[in-house]
Amino acid sequence: MRPAALEWSVDNCTIGRAMAILGERWTVVVLREVFNGIFRFDDMRERTGIPRQVLTNRLALLVDNGVLRRVPYREPGARARDEYRLTEKGFDLYPLLVAVREWGDRYLADPGGPPLLTVHRDCGAPVHAVLSCEAGHTDLPPRDVVPQPGPGARRRP
Amino acid sequence: MRPAALEWSVDNCTIGRAMAILGERWTVVVLREVFNGIFRFDDMRERTGIPRQVLTNRLALLVDNGVLRRVPYREPGARARDEYRLTEKGFDLYPLLVAVREWGDRYLADPGGPPLLTVHRDCGAPVHAVLSCEAGHTDLPPRDVVPQPGPGARRRP
Repeated sequence: MRPAALEWSVDNCTIGRAMAILGERWTVVVLREVFNGIFRFDDMRERTGIPRQVLTNRLALLVDNGVLRRVPYREPGARARDEYRLTEKGFDLYPLLVAVREWGDRYLADPGGPPLLTVHRDCGAPVHAVLSCEAGHTDLPPRDVVPQPGPGARRRP
Repeated sequence: MRPAALEWSVDNCTIGRAMAILGERWTVVVLREVFNGIFRFDDMRERTGIPRQVLTNRLALLVDNGVLRRVPYREPGARARDEYRLTEKGFDLYPLLVAVREWGDRYLADPGGPPLLTVHRDCGAPVHAVLSCEAGHTDLPPRDVVPQPGPGARRRP
């Protein structure tokens, strides 16, 4: 039986395009740093051990793609440098980052448990990335969610 | 002001561990194929154009990490081959994949709109990856979600 998806083009697939940005090794780890308030090159280097040239490249990739923006700062007696802050496009990656962390927590954590939680600022309850439908059904199991051709779907030639 | 996150070790970070699996170029695209019902090597090749050796490597990585499992099949007159199916660990990547797609749809889609939607099987409404807290607050904006050291948090030496 020929799978239905074979009829459809992946040329305009937005997963492929997103992963062309996010799928470079270390890119999501750099985003983790910024989401955790680590905005400066040397602090990221110190915490992550990412090689200097790789970190430079990943930050440039994220700036070029509008995910991070450079904000100048100057320590007393030092030259002006840039720190890296999230744009709106960057903030919108938070559900994705939480989803990565939760899957990692479930399958890859040490026996002592995950090193980080995310909580709701207002009520303090743990926050999860879940699938919800626009009709208000929440926490949907993956098998209750099905793909469907969208408005930009193209048949393969 | 020294960021608080600098006090904490990232040695057991589950985002880093998850991205060591998912961050290889093409890995998430391979998962997209399987979630869309494309289970066979040649079909994936035909649809994605991933180089043969890279596809072989990515499938092996996902099998080795328990995300996909091999299931034998045999076409009439051909030798037995394997197709690739999601394990439970693989199915649990669905919120992550939906989050990748939604971010891509928002920022990287063609003017004609996204090529694929996900809908709730029962009610047909579009499905999104959202942040929800355990107290029942849903669709939380990223700025209402804050990180907190978890049970496995370790201070840096």
